[in-house]
Amino acid sequence: MASTAQRSKKKRSKTASKKKARSGKGSSHAARRAPAAKRSGNAYEKLTSELREIATLSSVLATISWDQEALMPAKGASLRADQIGLLSTMIHERSTSAQMGDMLRSAQRYATSNGDAKMKANIREAKRDYEKARKLPSDLVAELARSASLGMDAWKDARAESNFKKFLPWLTQSVELARQKADCYGVPRGGERYDALLDDYEPDMTAREVESIFTPLREQIVPLVSHVRRSKRKPDPKKIRIALPIEQQKQFVHEIAGAIGFDLEGGRIDESTHPFCEGVGPGDTRFTCRYTRHGWAEALLTAMHEAGHGIYEQGLPKHKLFGQPLAEAISLGIHESQSRMYENFIGRSQAFWEFALPVARKVFGAGSMRGVTPAHVYRAVNIVKPWWIRVESDECTYNLHIMLRFDLERAMVAGDLNPKDLPGAWNERMKSDFGLTVKDDRLGCLQDVHWSAGLIGYFPTYSLGNIYCAQFWEAMGKDIRGRDSKMARGDYDQILDWLRKNVHTKGRQYSAKDLCKRVTGKELSSAALVRHLKKKVADVYG
Amino acid sequence: MASTAQRSKKKRSKTASKKKARSGKGSSHAARRAPAAKRSGNAYEKLTSELREIATLSSVLATISWDQEALMPAKGASLRADQIGLLSTMIHERSTSAQMGDMLRSAQRYATSNGDAKMKANIREAKRDYEKARKLPSDLVAELARSASLGMDAWKDARAESNFKKFLPWLTQSVELARQKADCYGVPRGGERYDALLDDYEPDMTAREVESIFTPLREQIVPLVSHVRRSKRKPDPKKIRIALPIEQQKQFVHEIAGAIGFDLEGGRIDESTHPFCEGVGPGDTRFTCRYTRHGWAEALLTAMHEAGHGIYEQGLPKHKLFGQPLAEAISLGIHESQSRMYENFIGRSQAFWEFALPVARKVFGAGSMRGVTPAHVYRAVNIVKPWWIRVESDECTYNLHIMLRFDLERAMVAGDLNPKDLPGAWNERMKSDFGLTVKDDRLGCLQDVHWSAGLIGYFPTYSLGNIYCAQFWEAMGKDIRGRDSKMARGDYDQILDWLRKNVHTKGRQYSAKDLCKRVTGKELSSAALVRHLKKKVADVYG
Repeated sequence: MASTAQRSKKKRSKTASKKKARSGKGSSHAARRAPAAKRSGNAYEKLTSELREIATLSSVLATISWDQEALMPAKGASLRADQIGLLSTMIHERSTSAQMGDMLRSAQRYATSNGDAKMKANIREAKRDYEKARKLPSDLVAELARSASLGMDAWKDARAESNFKKFLPWLTQSVELARQKADCYGVPRGGERYDALLDDYEPDMTAREVESIFTPLREQIVPLVSHVRRSKRKPDPKKIRIALPIEQQKQFVHEIAGAIGFDLEGGRIDESTHPFCEGVGPGDTRFTCRYTRHGWAEALLTAMHEAGHGIYEQGLPKHKLFGQPLAEAISLGIHESQSRMYENFIGRSQAFWEFALPVARKVFGAGSMRGVTPAHVYRAVNIVKPWWIRVESDECTYNLHIMLRFDLERAMVAGDLNPKDLPGAWNERMKSDFGLTVKDDRLGCLQDVHWSAGLIGYFPTYSLGNIYCAQFWEAMGKDIRGRDSKMARGDYDQILDWLRKNVHTKGRQYSAKDLCKRVTGKELSSAALVRHLKKKVADVYG
Repeated sequence: MASTAQRSKKKRSKTASKKKARSGKGSSHAARRAPAAKRSGNAYEKLTSELREIATLSSVLATISWDQEALMPAKGASLRADQIGLLSTMIHERSTSAQMGDMLRSAQRYATSNGDAKMKANIREAKRDYEKARKLPSDLVAELARSASLGMDAWKDARAESNFKKFLPWLTQSVELARQKADCYGVPRGGERYDALLDDYEPDMTAREVESIFTPLREQIVPLVSHVRRSKRKPDPKKIRIALPIEQQKQFVHEIAGAIGFDLEGGRIDESTHPFCEGVGPGDTRFTCRYTRHGWAEALLTAMHEAGHGIYEQGLPKHKLFGQPLAEAISLGIHESQSRMYENFIGRSQAFWEFALPVARKVFGAGSMRGVTPAHVYRAVNIVKPWWIRVESDECTYNLHIMLRFDLERAMVAGDLNPKDLPGAWNERMKSDFGLTVKDDRLGCLQDVHWSAGLIGYFPTYSLGNIYCAQFWEAMGKDIRGRDSKMARGDYDQILDWLRKNVHTKGRQYSAKDLCKRVTGKELSSAALVRHLKKKVADVYG
């Protein structure tokens, strides 16, 4: 063992050599040059080659960002900030260069006579990215980043002290910068500033459309929650609160994630405080989970959520088209639809637990799971309970949280709500929608990091995800006969195939709305989600 | 748990934002721009700023290289090769640019009137790196990399089949390319081609010097090994072969690594097939270990070896001087001296085990360690046994392996040994030095990856490491009174302080030879190592 060591030394070329010496693995990076090193071919090939090289740099950024969250030692934070800053700048410069503009124009000319629909979609989306990125002056980009960084620090303190006043100046600035950003992007005719912000996360969706989809949803969920509150049936969450070793929980998560379709040879599952998924690039998709001694079912559902994101990333056609929009996710809402499907529509179904509980018995030992039935788990993981904190909320009331935030941030951007009046507006809505009194802004308008980080226009994508998901799920149900019994048997192949074919492999070829209509034959609406939620409430609460 | 998800999406800017949204951590990379973004100050500051930025890129490469070995999913290999290729090219281009040459010249002019010894050393070393890198034409660099990559594949097959003929064309090419490389670097007057190759790993050392240091070492070790073979005393390795849970072994490794001075807040310890250490950058040094059920002591010594590399990396003054030669390791030999010190001089001492065995009892349970004494472990980990495989060899015969390789590779480069005659020469030497017959080239000249990977001139640094180490250790012994009893008590602070002060904080200010002389007051020689090995053999074998 004395000599297999490798050490990082003064020149990388040496380290690379030593690494080879150690492991006998060929990194072979000069033999197989970076794809775009020689940029030949027609104008379209030149563009995709440049896009692939930028994507390769971005995948490096994704790797070190994942590492930052999952593994990085505490003292590495400053170096990591430098690394991320440097790579981000390099990526931004290449993505917005004049040369990129030329490549896009040439490719577009080429495609006019030679292109098919996919090529045209690729160029359309690449151009959209380019033009959007060019619209923001670098001063504003820097100011947004600075404000987000400092704002998050201020928010953390303010939340710890439940001190809204401390946060107010940052919130005010965040809203003001968002308005400036919207103005740079340009407000669509007949639209509002919020549309331009939303477009960053959910392209082609407008505030008015969101409103028209959310309004009927809220009208259905509020009475549903009242019904739950009045119900005499009270499912018992304690039935499934069992102390179990974390190592076994991890094994359980790995087995289930593999069984539902997450490719473990093309990915990893690790631990972090804030679970997340990172689609690093072709063949490398990683998510994290969080474990507590009694929370085995919660950990599994968290993992299924992230696995859903991961399965989407693995299903995007990155192997061939890495860097091209056709290998990228459409929107945050569509991404979320995949995570919600695996978490809520599969993971919180009784059919799933008919399969998963025997796996749990095998992993944890039959004794640990004695007396637990699929029905117990089904009821316990579908408890509806109005609660102050969004991230701790159930599948049903979660949407109320989102709609509250959407309305309030939209009003702030429009100038109809002064940031200083946020706590009052928030608390009033919590009372009317949830029947809850907010005594403490920590449990109210200070709970989320988003606004401090400049993420305005982001919240609606969470509920849009639920809505897309429900509509996909209904359509899929027509194509897959006996889906429930398949799930109960542990057969998730057809579900995966359906998602691959209808959603994942499409990349950004269509807008989210168009994809939804193509796949489901219907305009986007919350009807399917309402049916899904009502059925669950009926099952659990009568 | 439903909503803390983050997913990598089409634009990195979004992912970065979402990451913030998720964790509330400020990556703050626009607020604190990459150090060299604005390059101001005098000519020297401009140079160090550029060097720091290149080092930051290199640290990214180090992070993803570490990830490749420790964690990367199998299917991520192709993307990783692209990432490494792209970053390596970018780093190489910046390190060898004409602009870098200008910066170096300006800084040198500046330093003539304003510089102190450290500034001058920095410029001297940066210039050395630059000039060396510029000497290799890019065709040759590509050919070396291609040959290494393909050669390693061929070597793996050849070794598996124990088929030297299959490897011979690659070995021949590897030697030929090494000769070309040496000619590009330039053969020093009165020297030989091998000197130019060695300089890549052990700057300022020549083959003749190595020979003059190795010859007396070999003359002492060969009879020492014969003595061992004739000895009646046979220490029993089985005394310490105890099956222990891997999780506990990991805990043991963490406790000991922390106790001897590896800063776990500025580093990590993970697992990999081939243990290695990566000094990613300031605040981030990582090493890996390998565990087997019975090999708890072996795992610990492997960890101590890598911890030694890691402690050196952590002791280099990177926080202030990142990217500057003064924050970099001098040579592979000096790096190895640190790993060998923690592995062999500390980890294989009886005093250390007086401290470590109680820790083992605490971690593994007293029952598991019943009947094991520090003396048992001391003898078991110091068994001398001539053996075919270098990486499985003991502290003493290991050096014979190195000297064999040094002589043979030097002869091949000089043209005195035809690669086709390698097996014969190898086997003859194994017989004379080890008393072993090689029946199978897999256990002979096909065992190491180095030559297939183009690493010619690398081997001597392993034994030079042992030699530096022993000489440092003797000098340190004069400065630290009661070192053994301190080690037995678990007090490793003074050892660490001594190494920090005398070795680590010096970076590349002096050449390895000069440092050795400054620190120990003596020219480099194998005398101290011989004394050390003889004492151990006397202890164990009488």
